[in-house]
Amino acid sequence: MKKPIGVIDSGVGGLTVVSEIIRQLPKEEIIYIGDTARCPYGPRTEDEVRAYTWEMIDYLTSHDIKLLVIACNTATAVILEEAKERLSIPVLGVIHPGATAALKVTTNHHVGVIGTEGTISSGAYHRELTTINDKVKVVSLACPTLVPLVETGEFTGHMAREIITKALAPILQYDIDSLILGCTHYPLLAPLIEEVVGSNVKVICSGDETALEVSSLLYHKELLYTGDITPHHIFYTTGLKANFKKVAEEWLKPHSLDIRETDLRLPIRFYQKKTAGFRS
Amino acid sequence: MKKPIGVIDSGVGGLTVVSEIIRQLPKEEIIYIGDTARCPYGPRTEDEVRAYTWEMIDYLTSHDIKLLVIACNTATAVILEEAKERLSIPVLGVIHPGATAALKVTTNHHVGVIGTEGTISSGAYHRELTTINDKVKVVSLACPTLVPLVETGEFTGHMAREIITKALAPILQYDIDSLILGCTHYPLLAPLIEEVVGSNVKVICSGDETALEVSSLLYHKELLYTGDITPHHIFYTTGLKANFKKVAEEWLKPHSLDIRETDLRLPIRFYQKKTAGFRS
Repeated sequence: MKKPIGVIDSGVGGLTVVSEIIRQLPKEEIIYIGDTARCPYGPRTEDEVRAYTWEMIDYLTSHDIKLLVIACNTATAVILEEAKERLSIPVLGVIHPGATAALKVTTNHHVGVIGTEGTISSGAYHRELTTINDKVKVVSLACPTLVPLVETGEFTGHMAREIITKALAPILQYDIDSLILGCTHYPLLAPLIEEVVGSNVKVICSGDETALEVSSLLYHKELLYTGDITPHHIFYTTGLKANFKKVAEEWLKPHSLDIRETDLRLPIRFYQKKTAGFRS
Repeated sequence: MKKPIGVIDSGVGGLTVVSEIIRQLPKEEIIYIGDTARCPYGPRTEDEVRAYTWEMIDYLTSHDIKLLVIACNTATAVILEEAKERLSIPVLGVIHPGATAALKVTTNHHVGVIGTEGTISSGAYHRELTTINDKVKVVSLACPTLVPLVETGEFTGHMAREIITKALAPILQYDIDSLILGCTHYPLLAPLIEEVVGSNVKVICSGDETALEVSSLLYHKELLYTGDITPHHIFYTTGLKANFKKVAEEWLKPHSLDIRETDLRLPIRFYQKKTAGFRS
């Protein structure tokens, strides 16, 4: 079906998910919105996260998307269930794909999870993992020092390695054999994280797994696009286009990007047919 | 939802898929049927495969299953689309999960597929892979010497290694970076296959990937069982219980198994409510 996949995020982190969707599903078109103006969501109240996320969802459903990905762990933890209930299109978060991937690779049933303070304190990964397998031991750790590394472009190098080593030390005292990167910023640090945790710990990038679940859902809902039209991805930012462009072009290369600014105000026509995308 | 997952196969091969479902989804209950009396399906006509597979599907849907897995590549290639159309429950084959997993791991876009003659000549993997990504080069190879190795219990050792090396030689002339084991028997040979293809080729077991897709579908359809009742799996065979038991206990250890023989004739009550499991 020739309709775009909608991806929302609190900022640029969700671009790691987009990058994997483009790689695994190259015929699919993406429409992305990053709420860079109000990023990060991690320290915000649940009500704020809910309100901001619904603004993004309303904005994207007005663009007639066929599936919605909530690519932000914090927003997923707060809003996924109500979004699934209210929208008539399939909705995915990043937590379930990461959790099931860990259950697939773990053999000793000791799974580590790192994320922002908001995601870890929500207990969402723990809940998802133990709902499916109550014998799994989950060790969770908030790593507030990692997102700034990515945002400042420090993906590699001595300093980044040192900060990661220090941040991960508490979790490595446990005998985990798999580690979920429970924040969409972290995949950019994956090579360093893999080095620090060693080859006995399988590192799971939620972006890769979410793209796989998108593929599976589109297939089972018969929504895959199988034609030959080259997709034209559009990226909206609530912040400055120039800042977004810098990060996006670095992460998504070699894609030439159509980036636009938005204040999230909906076009009038949307209000005229406001049930679009919603269950009647 | 406390209903079993139905798994059908031409014989014992599908037990590799069951083994992964039990491992990844330990709360879920399985009801399996292996048509060992008429195995293998590979050399049979399409009409035979269709008729036999529908007999198994009718048998399992009479047991009120919540999801059906066609764990046989040959049967998937022949019947998946019509089963999805006719049944009201979700239906999965093993080809799509294997194909999407390959698209996830490949970086040079050269994907190898090995399977029975029936599966390879159906072109099902090639079709699935290139529908999603038409830039992927697919190298397919029928390996008729591998199933006998598994059926005779020769998973390891010098002879098995030699047979695998010889069987895979043609495909290793191509620069593949991923290899789909497109037959549910092959995962038992995975350690030897990985040795033969080398560490640069990622080996994809369809069973592992199918279990992950089962997990994703159950989750999105809100069919996961989240209670505390220990599952009681039932295994039906159209052949001799003793033969089935020998293989099943070796592959599925440490599970104690409830194995039963069946001639696939349906209980009378099923005919009285024969629309069960079907779209009205």
